[in-house]
Amino acid sequence: MGKKAIGIDLGGTAIKGAVIDENGISGEVTRVPTEAQSGGQRVMENILSLIEKLTGAGGGAGAFVGVGIGTPGFVGADGVILGGAENLPGWKGTQVYAPISERFGGLRATAANDVTSVALAELKYGAGRGVQNIVCFALGTGVGGGIVTNGRLYKGTHGMAGEIGHIIVETGGEPCPCGQCGCVERYASATGIVNMAVGMAAQKDTPETEFLKVVKSEPGAVTSKLVYEYVAKEDPVAIAVHERACDMLGRAVGIMINTFSPDKVVLGGGVMMAGGVVLEAVKKYAARHCWPAIYERCEIVIAKMGEDAGVLGAGALALEEFD
Amino acid sequence: MGKKAIGIDLGGTAIKGAVIDENGISGEVTRVPTEAQSGGQRVMENILSLIEKLTGAGGGAGAFVGVGIGTPGFVGADGVILGGAENLPGWKGTQVYAPISERFGGLRATAANDVTSVALAELKYGAGRGVQNIVCFALGTGVGGGIVTNGRLYKGTHGMAGEIGHIIVETGGEPCPCGQCGCVERYASATGIVNMAVGMAAQKDTPETEFLKVVKSEPGAVTSKLVYEYVAKEDPVAIAVHERACDMLGRAVGIMINTFSPDKVVLGGGVMMAGGVVLEAVKKYAARHCWPAIYERCEIVIAKMGEDAGVLGAGALALEEFD
Repeated sequence: MGKKAIGIDLGGTAIKGAVIDENGISGEVTRVPTEAQSGGQRVMENILSLIEKLTGAGGGAGAFVGVGIGTPGFVGADGVILGGAENLPGWKGTQVYAPISERFGGLRATAANDVTSVALAELKYGAGRGVQNIVCFALGTGVGGGIVTNGRLYKGTHGMAGEIGHIIVETGGEPCPCGQCGCVERYASATGIVNMAVGMAAQKDTPETEFLKVVKSEPGAVTSKLVYEYVAKEDPVAIAVHERACDMLGRAVGIMINTFSPDKVVLGGGVMMAGGVVLEAVKKYAARHCWPAIYERCEIVIAKMGEDAGVLGAGALALEEFD
Repeated sequence: MGKKAIGIDLGGTAIKGAVIDENGISGEVTRVPTEAQSGGQRVMENILSLIEKLTGAGGGAGAFVGVGIGTPGFVGADGVILGGAENLPGWKGTQVYAPISERFGGLRATAANDVTSVALAELKYGAGRGVQNIVCFALGTGVGGGIVTNGRLYKGTHGMAGEIGHIIVETGGEPCPCGQCGCVERYASATGIVNMAVGMAAQKDTPETEFLKVVKSEPGAVTSKLVYEYVAKEDPVAIAVHERACDMLGRAVGIMINTFSPDKVVLGGGVMMAGGVVLEAVKKYAARHCWPAIYERCEIVIAKMGEDAGVLGAGALALEEFD
């Protein structure tokens, strides 16, 4: 029988868990509330209860090689949350490995940033199957990412690798809360796309298209999905927003291709619901921002894993690290 | 007795070779002419002769775990030179592993880009000792680099990882022969520094300093060393060139820190002969271009390995890959 592990995906409202083996999720994904507002210790208790359910139903803790946790923020090599998880008050400073080992008879645990660990899910089960080196861009509220080198998730010593949303792509560009200007996240995230649309509506010289009328009448209701509905209708303003987002993303993709020479760049997250139109535009712009010899050996593809990518990636991490 | 390997550093005029063990270079570095103009097969013959000398003096090929080669250009996973070595006509397409195995009774060989492999020398024997993840910038005629993740040299599937000289740091900046504009190499290489100095001398509003007079009188004799001699004399024009070079380099360093979260960024190459003045300025600018939490966990340091770094890195690669 093959190895199996527990994968845990910690979110702001729910914790998801499942048994993961070499074929992916075995059985069902189980959810429990995070209870984030009750503090770090309560969140950890809820994780332990979820592990208990999953191991109990799966032959006891001894049947698993370990537990992998995908968490917001950064995790140090010793299992302490170093920060960066603002939606989980009191989570910073929590030790996540020791309680699992204590409660489940020495069961081993590992952890990584939730977005970063998705890259491992894509490598093992999704768009990166069969290759060794990939870079994933997650285009959601922000832009996150993950890097796999030599077939293994590259976390960095302090769990901080993969902050590709803050690659600067425009000198003196849009100010970012991170303190820099011109971060790719300001343009290519769902938030960035919406902000560009609203900003364009406020400019005098923007042509009065159908899309622009909608944006002006209810700016608070604009989403990246709406932008791409009007891109499909060939609305010139929506297309201008789309092209700018993909130009900026293409620059960041180009930098990652030049520096990492990955076999694949995987584009995922909510923005990629728009699919091929984004993919083709990003390919066009990325090609202008890298060495041809490196670019032609890298494929840019759409992510294959859906909403359970986090659970899968976390479990895959435990399968990778533990025998 | 510990493992030992042969390290080979292929240059445009000379091939250097040495026996490498866990302590570094064992014995002396041996040199033979490259004879680059005689074509790829002659270069390969010269490498084989050098290996013969080194194994002959070191107990025969059977006493070595393998051969590591640092070469200009890119090497595919199968040992074929994929290109990028313009100073070695006919080197592209050469198979470098098989002839070594055939000539020396199955002796194994591995290869990497010469600049990339220096990163492994720094990790094992130099400025990166004791850590797992580093990024090296080599500031020479151009800007090259190397990445070590999880303690191993990250070559990429096609040996093309580490092209950090072509990170774009200025939107619409200086045109680069690579086809992009604003590559960090245009500013922070020795060539870039010289070009900025000469360019500044041609501008009307540049103050007429001692340095400027020297540049104007003999623009062809300007070197990055000269620039830093005048930086030491506090010449305002030389300082302006230096600050701009370090600002641009700091941006690229910031991108690598955000994306890789290395334990150390190692700055090497001829430009770093200037030492601390460059280091301190790069630290200042890099800090403005990354997340504070990631920046404060990364140390920016000067390379420790000297002219034999290439031989050491190549040998270290063989020690790493072969048992």
